[in-house]
Amino acid sequence: MIGSFAPQEKTMKNFKSSPSRLETRSRFRSPNIQQVSMGGFWADRIAAVAEKTVPILQLRCDEAGMFDQIDPARPIPEQRIPFSTAFGGGKVRPVGGNVTAQMYWDSDVAKMVEAAAFSLASHRNDTIEAVIDRIVDMYEALQQEDGYLNSWYIRMQPGKRWTNLRDCHELYCAGHLIEAAVAYYQATGKRKFMDVMGRYVDHIASMFGPEPDKRRGYCGHEEIELALVKLARATGEQRYLELAKYFIDERGREPHYFLIEAEERAEEPGRFAHGTFEYNQSHIPVREQTKVVGHAVRAMYLYSAMADLVTEYGDETLRCALDALWDDLVTKRLYVTGGLGPSADNEGFTSDYDLPNETAYAETCAAVGLVFWASRMLGFGADTRYADIMEQALYNGALAGVSLDGMRFFYENPLQSRGNHHRWPWHRCPCCPPNIARLIASIGTYAYGVGESEIAVHLYGENQARIDLGGRAVHLSQNTRYPWDGSIAITIDVEEPTGFALLLRIPAWCATATLKVNDEIVDLAATLQRGYARLDRTWRPGDRVMIVLDLTIQRLYAHPNVRQDRNRVALRRGPLIYCLEGTDNSVPLDRISLAPDAAFEARFEENFLGGVVTLQAPATAETSDDWLQTLYRPEPPRTSPASITAVPYYAWDNREPGEMLVWLRET
Amino acid sequence: MIGSFAPQEKTMKNFKSSPSRLETRSRFRSPNIQQVSMGGFWADRIAAVAEKTVPILQLRCDEAGMFDQIDPARPIPEQRIPFSTAFGGGKVRPVGGNVTAQMYWDSDVAKMVEAAAFSLASHRNDTIEAVIDRIVDMYEALQQEDGYLNSWYIRMQPGKRWTNLRDCHELYCAGHLIEAAVAYYQATGKRKFMDVMGRYVDHIASMFGPEPDKRRGYCGHEEIELALVKLARATGEQRYLELAKYFIDERGREPHYFLIEAEERAEEPGRFAHGTFEYNQSHIPVREQTKVVGHAVRAMYLYSAMADLVTEYGDETLRCALDALWDDLVTKRLYVTGGLGPSADNEGFTSDYDLPNETAYAETCAAVGLVFWASRMLGFGADTRYADIMEQALYNGALAGVSLDGMRFFYENPLQSRGNHHRWPWHRCPCCPPNIARLIASIGTYAYGVGESEIAVHLYGENQARIDLGGRAVHLSQNTRYPWDGSIAITIDVEEPTGFALLLRIPAWCATATLKVNDEIVDLAATLQRGYARLDRTWRPGDRVMIVLDLTIQRLYAHPNVRQDRNRVALRRGPLIYCLEGTDNSVPLDRISLAPDAAFEARFEENFLGGVVTLQAPATAETSDDWLQTLYRPEPPRTSPASITAVPYYAWDNREPGEMLVWLRET
Repeated sequence: MIGSFAPQEKTMKNFKSSPSRLETRSRFRSPNIQQVSMGGFWADRIAAVAEKTVPILQLRCDEAGMFDQIDPARPIPEQRIPFSTAFGGGKVRPVGGNVTAQMYWDSDVAKMVEAAAFSLASHRNDTIEAVIDRIVDMYEALQQEDGYLNSWYIRMQPGKRWTNLRDCHELYCAGHLIEAAVAYYQATGKRKFMDVMGRYVDHIASMFGPEPDKRRGYCGHEEIELALVKLARATGEQRYLELAKYFIDERGREPHYFLIEAEERAEEPGRFAHGTFEYNQSHIPVREQTKVVGHAVRAMYLYSAMADLVTEYGDETLRCALDALWDDLVTKRLYVTGGLGPSADNEGFTSDYDLPNETAYAETCAAVGLVFWASRMLGFGADTRYADIMEQALYNGALAGVSLDGMRFFYENPLQSRGNHHRWPWHRCPCCPPNIARLIASIGTYAYGVGESEIAVHLYGENQARIDLGGRAVHLSQNTRYPWDGSIAITIDVEEPTGFALLLRIPAWCATATLKVNDEIVDLAATLQRGYARLDRTWRPGDRVMIVLDLTIQRLYAHPNVRQDRNRVALRRGPLIYCLEGTDNSVPLDRISLAPDAAFEARFEENFLGGVVTLQAPATAETSDDWLQTLYRPEPPRTSPASITAVPYYAWDNREPGEMLVWLRET
Repeated sequence: MIGSFAPQEKTMKNFKSSPSRLETRSRFRSPNIQQVSMGGFWADRIAAVAEKTVPILQLRCDEAGMFDQIDPARPIPEQRIPFSTAFGGGKVRPVGGNVTAQMYWDSDVAKMVEAAAFSLASHRNDTIEAVIDRIVDMYEALQQEDGYLNSWYIRMQPGKRWTNLRDCHELYCAGHLIEAAVAYYQATGKRKFMDVMGRYVDHIASMFGPEPDKRRGYCGHEEIELALVKLARATGEQRYLELAKYFIDERGREPHYFLIEAEERAEEPGRFAHGTFEYNQSHIPVREQTKVVGHAVRAMYLYSAMADLVTEYGDETLRCALDALWDDLVTKRLYVTGGLGPSADNEGFTSDYDLPNETAYAETCAAVGLVFWASRMLGFGADTRYADIMEQALYNGALAGVSLDGMRFFYENPLQSRGNHHRWPWHRCPCCPPNIARLIASIGTYAYGVGESEIAVHLYGENQARIDLGGRAVHLSQNTRYPWDGSIAITIDVEEPTGFALLLRIPAWCATATLKVNDEIVDLAATLQRGYARLDRTWRPGDRVMIVLDLTIQRLYAHPNVRQDRNRVALRRGPLIYCLEGTDNSVPLDRISLAPDAAFEARFEENFLGGVVTLQAPATAETSDDWLQTLYRPEPPRTSPASITAVPYYAWDNREPGEMLVWLRET
């Protein structure tokens, strides 16, 4: 069950934290990409990304002409995507006349590089690494004397830089390039790209800030803030953190930068996509925000950076805002799949409890963004409230975004389909494929949180981790068939007896769990802190921890305010939400109804959908044989017996096209 | 309970059929506006239309500038409504660049005149009559030497006449002017307008037809066809019927006129609103049509004219098509309110069983149009299949289109509202207000069908009718509180014993009915023909018929293919569909659930909503008190007892704004 894990020389090079001027207040930090090697469930997904998705991403970026735009050695290309279009809901529509999706190409290339870089950690590939090196060379060559680096504004629209932060994704592109550079450094030890980006960030810091000689700008699409935290952590440079903090602090303040900027462009300030600053979460200062609003991906990236700053600065005012925003999302605005942002119109949030299933936008990028946010909330300390949501979004709303073979992608992730929703090989706004790819490729870094003398296990799954705990190496080995089986054996390998606390997450969905250390039962209740069993002891080489989580199939009911889910249940087994697919069920899915007491059987099917547990249950289905020539009648529909098969939501639409349904009727 | 009925001298003038060259094959013809005087339920609605709606319509037409466009004595006005906009779904959007809703103004004025004319029959009003006379004078003055008469093309776009039948409503406007002229003639005996329109029709007939020297055109918005039948019947001129038949026969034939016409305009043939000829039912010849498609109002007007032609020509090929279209509508595409056309996008039909409640477009005009169509299907012979649908559309989907006070109007008629859907005082595309007004003002003409020696009672309701049966006057007097009470007493008054068949409709929704003639029970089953009790006898002065229809409250269930109504019931009492309104119910409406055996109480409330029967029942409502900080959970929602009050659907949104729901949950 274990993937191709083998200690690599290169790994060790980055194993120790680099000396740092940055004083972190983080209680838990993620391990880096070299420290955790995944097996089992995730090894298959990581392999699909490394072997299929990454080459596809490189090919598509090339086909789209992105490298023609970046490479200063090539002639300046024709513009390929028209101005004045936006992509909400797949519709082309005017957004004010000065925006083109081509402005975002640096970010698409950057996310591809980041996904490729993370993949290299587990799947060495000289060809792919060579492509990245060439891209880094292009950017190095493209970089201006003053450090500025954006292919659109250097090559396609020179002279226009920093004139429209609201719409044009300029700092957003910088953010993704920074993330890519950090990832490539962590995966390969090659610093060139990170150094290039460091110079660009220095230029950005010279342009924007609270000082009187700088502009008080920030980006209309948050991203650079969290990227700057990554760069600060990777380089140990406090000033990158300070710039992130400035962007967060300034956002939504009066006088509003986007109004000033629009005036400078001699534009009507209200004429822009969606016409409200809620769209990009700049309607009020971030510390005053209590509702998750606007474009969902923007929101997730903002909150992720805010959480990072809470961690790094211990900023309680930011933390209060995050607590309110978190509660708002998870108690009123989150799909059971961990998807979010129901509306195609603003690619984002609407009103409380508005969670339509068939028209759910629930962009893959938004669920990926929620994993980012939740993982950063764990920086404050282990709390299964955050880890549960991270896992829910990861295994369902995010993972559905890529086909099992890694070759096709969802942008929208509805919870119901009449059979007309399918993954596509590419998209005009190709943000989602590299986003889910970079998450999967780096999933090991989300599994653990490392504190001073604590190791938290946030995600279960077959893997081996080598963790640096205050200079001592701790090797953890998880042996498990999770998420298909709830038994997790963890072996602790230390060179000598070492005292630290091992925090083991007991998910809130788990009704009963047992915990043993070296075959001795632990009183779970006595050890639980915020949903984590805390085992604080001196660990010896070969110590074994055994956790058994109850994966009994559960029916979930939605809050009575969610009209679309009324009289319906969602099926959950462990972290997985299930759905019905037309191909497995012989009647129209919405005609099916479960009795409240219908018993489910879970069955692992090794050669089905890459190996999944399916769920079977008896049900009934409305029949229409006796409705000839009748649309309405005084007698209720009759039913006949039906047996149903449910598959994990993430695995849907990998076979014949057909209907899909998450929320089943219960009567 | 009887309205202001008094025999009028003017009535008698039109009482006898005028001598006619037209040989009708109609089995049943409607009485004219002078022959039936409504009391009770409809007298109130007619009064609201006559006293409030009609003056509002006149005022709004004036305010809009319509008379400035029509009156050749005034300067040619500026254009007021921009080109290139359409109104589907309330959205302004491009439709090809050469259309403006202002092109339809003749039809808006015409429908206002028609509603006013019908109202004059029951509510004499010299001011209103004088306004109509001035409008007639304007049109007479506007009419061109050759008979042409369209205010837009004469005044606003001279030289462009007959260049775009597909989009520009030119013949549609003619149709409404014809209907107005006929109505004004029938209501007042004044022929001038009808003569003006006769000359225009002669011009039209000189332009369009199957002869080689004519263009094989027809209108993109059906209407003139049914108007020509009315004109033929009112004038006895067979040639008007022939022109109607030509328009129907030619529709959808190859080579397709709209393609030829687009080519002549040097336009891309596919570039027009909705881009499909299904939109205006010209995708195939009408006799080959079996699915109700496209714009719902257009469809209803087409089918109405087709039914008229079946009646007048005995055309069995048309009748076969109508039978298929009727079945398609009533078994797959009709709301339980008699509303139709679920989509705002094409203001029309989508796919089978697609009947969303909250987003139902269900334009008032479409339900009015269905009343038109159904009433004309009764021309073939009395059949309660048609009369039931006529009554269902009339009392629910159509009647909801105007407020009880006659002053505010619905364009869309959803079956569920979160509280944001309300009647408006006017609309940029003001087609619905005069449409529902002209229907209400002329409702008496829909109540009866008159054959050679047969009188069919299609609609019950307090009224007095004087019917010419082969030269003999038959007076019928209905005494009833219908639709609130199922007892209907009909007194037959003849000057001398007269043999004829009285056909009394027994609605299909009526589970049990009793029938007496002069206190003697009639064996209903033995007399029933297609849902009508046929009493063929020699009627004597003062004969009395007593019908008692069972108005037990019924729950209606929708076909299992209607996903939106699953596990839900609609409440029907007699012809009325009921709904819940937020103002009468203390919990969010969709949280309410009825037990399958919950008993209803019906209560007449005289001083409530103009006097209505309300329905009360015990129910349960989901509670959310125990859902603090939880969006999904393994336990189903708890419920608490609730009592509900339902009101007739037509009467909703006449009080405080709030939620509304037709389809109640049943669990």
